[in-house]
Amino acid sequence: MHLFYQPDIKIKELDEEEARHSTKVLRLGSGDIIYVTDGKGLLQKCALEINGKKVKYSVLEAEITPKRAYSVHMAIAPTRKAERNEWMVEKMTEMGVERIDFIVTTNTIKESLNRVVNLGRLNKIAASAMKQSQQLYMPEITLNQNFNGFLETRTEKAKLLAYVPDNQLMKHVYQCTAVEDSTLLLIGPEGDFTPAEVDAALKYGFTTVSLGATRLRTETAAIAGCHAINLANLTNI
Amino acid sequence: MHLFYQPDIKIKELDEEEARHSTKVLRLGSGDIIYVTDGKGLLQKCALEINGKKVKYSVLEAEITPKRAYSVHMAIAPTRKAERNEWMVEKMTEMGVERIDFIVTTNTIKESLNRVVNLGRLNKIAASAMKQSQQLYMPEITLNQNFNGFLETRTEKAKLLAYVPDNQLMKHVYQCTAVEDSTLLLIGPEGDFTPAEVDAALKYGFTTVSLGATRLRTETAAIAGCHAINLANLTNI
Repeated sequence: MHLFYQPDIKIKELDEEEARHSTKVLRLGSGDIIYVTDGKGLLQKCALEINGKKVKYSVLEAEITPKRAYSVHMAIAPTRKAERNEWMVEKMTEMGVERIDFIVTTNTIKESLNRVVNLGRLNKIAASAMKQSQQLYMPEITLNQNFNGFLETRTEKAKLLAYVPDNQLMKHVYQCTAVEDSTLLLIGPEGDFTPAEVDAALKYGFTTVSLGATRLRTETAAIAGCHAINLANLTNI
Repeated sequence: MHLFYQPDIKIKELDEEEARHSTKVLRLGSGDIIYVTDGKGLLQKCALEINGKKVKYSVLEAEITPKRAYSVHMAIAPTRKAERNEWMVEKMTEMGVERIDFIVTTNTIKESLNRVVNLGRLNKIAASAMKQSQQLYMPEITLNQNFNGFLETRTEKAKLLAYVPDNQLMKHVYQCTAVEDSTLLLIGPEGDFTPAEVDAALKYGFTTVSLGATRLRTETAAIAGCHAINLANLTNI
């Protein structure tokens, strides 16, 4: 299935990059069948109409796939390296994630923030991963400057904080996931959360959880956590 | 804890790169305490003796940490991009993995194999991830050209093949892990296993398993699978 992404359903045309891919890499021609999603569950079976560099299409059939029964929300202090933020977005999108909120904490390096969390680029990477894994929903990706303000407004059924004080035994995120409901997992920066941030999260109803026996980098923690929440929903129902 | 890696316990000296890191980045001096592991469970508390560029140490205390009660073996068809092979090694090492066997399959791109699976570089990356996550065991990393020969010699308690024929329901690797024992998970290339390879694996006692609801790239499958086996051991005992 050749899956393409066009978020605006009124525009029956592929953007420049996808247009080039369809004709130069896949070598498709007029009349060939492609599939186009809007990233919000709509799958359209379409016939191509190629005119020079313009790749338009007409919709033959359309079908909406409902959202899955649970949702995975990840709130993550960005790493200082753009590529690590990019690949966690790619991998979480492949595994399935509804929201990715990058969140600035006390120990976040702020100087290069707009470069290492480039929302335009991250959305392109997510779109590519969505198509690659043949999914029909794009995650929503945001950048938040206000830690407490962000925490205060969260309404997920399970609100989890990946934080293990020294030598304490914690339940794993897998065991604390809200099955068939929404789960938010908050993951800290290199240098961890400050005690004030941990206190704030507890005040707003977060539960501290572990991500396993080893110490993980931020981006590895994000992927392990996202995978564990998906797995809890797949294996516990 | 400043953890360093010196596989040869007879050499009481850091290699050039770690020596530079200890003096230039961490700004340690003679008499300062570091910890050195051999990657085989030994943790040595050491006092530094710095002489110009040479960073030697004397061992004050030594202790062996036994291997964990289970082991995770990953056999993976390498991707065609070196960086994706490198990061799966990094991430699996962080999560905990005893063996990583790269294995050439029919659909593996062979031309660039020695470049994209550079064992020297992969071992450096694993060493760095081991130290970063404060572990004391290095995974063994190999490259295998003979698919059937490799399968034939495997002795793990659970031998799993990540392979989902169209529209079939499979158990998840999490549900098929050999808890407190050894589990091998075999992951295919872009383009998947050939029918003959699947038949060979079944003949050698492998069980087909799923890695979840979405279609994952090879390197994402490797990380998800490694994480699921670790998680099964953490949450099922």
